[in-house]
Amino acid sequence: MEAFSDGVFTIASTLLVIELAVPPGSTHLWHAVVEQWPSYLGYLVSFVTIGALWLAHTGITEYLHHANLWLMRLNLILMLAVAFLPFPTKLLGEYIREGSTERVATTLYGLSLLMTSALLYLFWRYAVHRGLVRADADEADVQILTKRLKPGLVAYVVLIVLGLFVPVAAVIGYLAIALYYLVPLGTARRQFRNRRKQQ
Amino acid sequence: MEAFSDGVFTIASTLLVIELAVPPGSTHLWHAVVEQWPSYLGYLVSFVTIGALWLAHTGITEYLHHANLWLMRLNLILMLAVAFLPFPTKLLGEYIREGSTERVATTLYGLSLLMTSALLYLFWRYAVHRGLVRADADEADVQILTKRLKPGLVAYVVLIVLGLFVPVAAVIGYLAIALYYLVPLGTARRQFRNRRKQQ
Amino acid sequence: MEAFSDGVFTIASTLLVIELAVPPGSTHLWHAVVEQWPSYLGYLVSFVTIGALWLAHTGITEYLHHANLWLMRLNLILMLAVAFLPFPTKLLGEYIREGSTERVATTLYGLSLLMTSALLYLFWRYAVHRGLVRADADEADVQILTKRLKPGLVAYVVLIVLGLFVPVAAVIGYLAIALYYLVPLGTARRQFRNRRKQQ
Amino acid sequence: MEAFSDGVFTIASTLLVIELAVPPGSTHLWHAVVEQWPSYLGYLVSFVTIGALWLAHTGITEYLHHANLWLMRLNLILMLAVAFLPFPTKLLGEYIREGSTERVATTLYGLSLLMTSALLYLFWRYAVHRGLVRADADEADVQILTKRLKPGLVAYVVLIVLGLFVPVAAVIGYLAIALYYLVPLGTARRQFRNRRKQQ
Repeated sequence: MEAFSDGVFTIASTLLVIELAVPPGSTHLWHAVVEQWPSYLGYLVSFVTIGALWLAHTGITEYLHHANLWLMRLNLILMLAVAFLPFPTKLLGEYIREGSTERVATTLYGLSLLMTSALLYLFWRYAVHRGLVRADADEADVQILTKRLKPGLVAYVVLIVLGLFVPVAAVIGYLAIALYYLVPLGTARRQFRNRRKQQ
Repeated sequence: MEAFSDGVFTIASTLLVIELAVPPGSTHLWHAVVEQWPSYLGYLVSFVTIGALWLAHTGITEYLHHANLWLMRLNLILMLAVAFLPFPTKLLGEYIREGSTERVATTLYGLSLLMTSALLYLFWRYAVHRGLVRADADEADVQILTKRLKPGLVAYVVLIVLGLFVPVAAVIGYLAIALYYLVPLGTARRQFRNRRKQQ
Repeated sequence: MEAFSDGVFTIASTLLVIELAVPPGSTHLWHAVVEQWPSYLGYLVSFVTIGALWLAHTGITEYLHHANLWLMRLNLILMLAVAFLPFPTKLLGEYIREGSTERVATTLYGLSLLMTSALLYLFWRYAVHRGLVRADADEADVQILTKRLKPGLVAYVVLIVLGLFVPVAAVIGYLAIALYYLVPLGTARRQFRNRRKQQ
Repeated sequence: MEAFSDGVFTIASTLLVIELAVPPGSTHLWHAVVEQWPSYLGYLVSFVTIGALWLAHTGITEYLHHANLWLMRLNLILMLAVAFLPFPTKLLGEYIREGSTERVATTLYGLSLLMTSALLYLFWRYAVHRGLVRADADEADVQILTKRLKPGLVAYVVLIVLGLFVPVAAVIGYLAIALYYLVPLGTARRQFRNRRKQQ
């Protein structure tokens, strides 16, 4: 399960670059490249989000002592959502500058990110609920992980609504969530590792 | 052999997203995205099918104590079929809504899925036939695996015929087969593991 | 070095499918799909060739006790050639049916295959020459590997010339070489393994 | 961290081939293919550069005894830059022959390469600065690695300026830097390994 998940995270993040289209035959290349900024922003947000999800996923699977069948199914659905991310990213890059469509593209992008994070949260909650977490992971760590994942979900919902009015602000907000995920989970994981070493 | 196979399964499933085309410059993006539903359906069916095949393949290779040359060749042909799946998926997504061509696209898609499953079945039967299965895999498990793989083949044939009349129903049927594969093989595999642990 | 090489072989073979273009909006889809046969033939030949090269490469790296700097550079060049193969494959698929260009496409394809095989041969010869082969690999095995790789090179040259007159025959010949590579190297490798087990 | 990095390096280098466009329906295919030489040059330079960066990265992570949170973040940014390289490569291939735009494409390409190397340099400096380097890596080796990475950065800056006047010369210069990276780091790494073996 871990090899498959690691593979999907790595490939999905590296595939994002393929969706970046070269501006068609232009005499003002600087101008054309600069005008593509939403594509680069989308690339950045998606790459960092996938990186953060991957770090969180690795953190979670380290806490588990084994996986049951339903967890593997949940993981497959989560991987489906992660592998799908390059598509709304491409949509965002191509439609965010065009007045009437930017809200649709931003909303679809936000919903995709929300779904992925919600599935990760579900994955973790299910594992805790069914007692699949290692006995040597102390209660505090488990609660930290739960606490960190939850506000991200709320933030996504708020930003999706905000995106209906100020699309670009929402996308920058998505980047902030990814950076937020990146920090605490990494810390929690490192602390967990240090503690295990000391034992 | 396992590293190569795992790689092909992972990459093929993650590549599926590239085949999803962004609807060309549209002022009604919601409408354009919704109209693309066959592409999403194809993506879903192919992703779950590849996931199920990969789980079954991992299950099978765990039962084997070694591989001979013909098994490796069979595996290469199986990988060729798996790596090919994104192509009929793309074909399905682009042609399923267009009256005169939807039957062709659905049939080609069904044949590709049938071929992949048939090759996996052949792979397993050959391994059993040539005594490549571990001695500690008990007879009942082997028969379960065989029993589970067979009806899928029959169902594919039935659905390919059905697809000539009701294409969309056939595609939903293909999803059902993938989910069916996902369940029992996973169970059989887990049981096998538990038993090995107890010994 | 092995992880990088395995990755390139696996990804290159799985990427081949992306180069298969869906026939543009057609009312006679069967016809359009059948007309694309050179693309499928190219896909088949390239997939089997990459599979055979990978098997040979794995076989060779198993014989080595260590790698020196020049071998790693040779390997990087070899990987460059392998990763490049999807491009001439695409070229072949698109141009083989068009009278005046089919010879160019077939020749470029043949040269790419020849170059890849020649680099693998060089890789192996260099390793033997510099004494990087394990001491427990007996002389006969080493000579078998050398003998098997050489005729492929000659066959490629012959087929490239033949391709100037009968392009399709040359492509089918390339498939035959790949199948030929697949057989003996696999055998040699298996025998080597068996012998090591017996010791 | 290593599995993710290895994956990104391998996939990014293999994905480069997808960006090579087949010349559109042409009756003079030789001519059309030869005219595409900037695409092949860009492919070559990017592949060798990614290969060299990967070798250097592997060399560095071998020297480290552990990673802290900031190093992992730096690594994520470095991977973002590596995974992005296929895009400026494609831009270079399509625009280097067209008078008014070749300078823009070459400059963007050079800046991308500079950024990647600068991030690798930062990655290494940070690891040294924070004492994350293994105790058994002797001072001389560490200084060699630092000395080798620095001139590359200066050379990139010089070549980016040169590229404003003679674009093609700059691209060939980028290839020379990659080859230069390839040599000494590999050597340093091999020496390090030999020394560890002797102990």
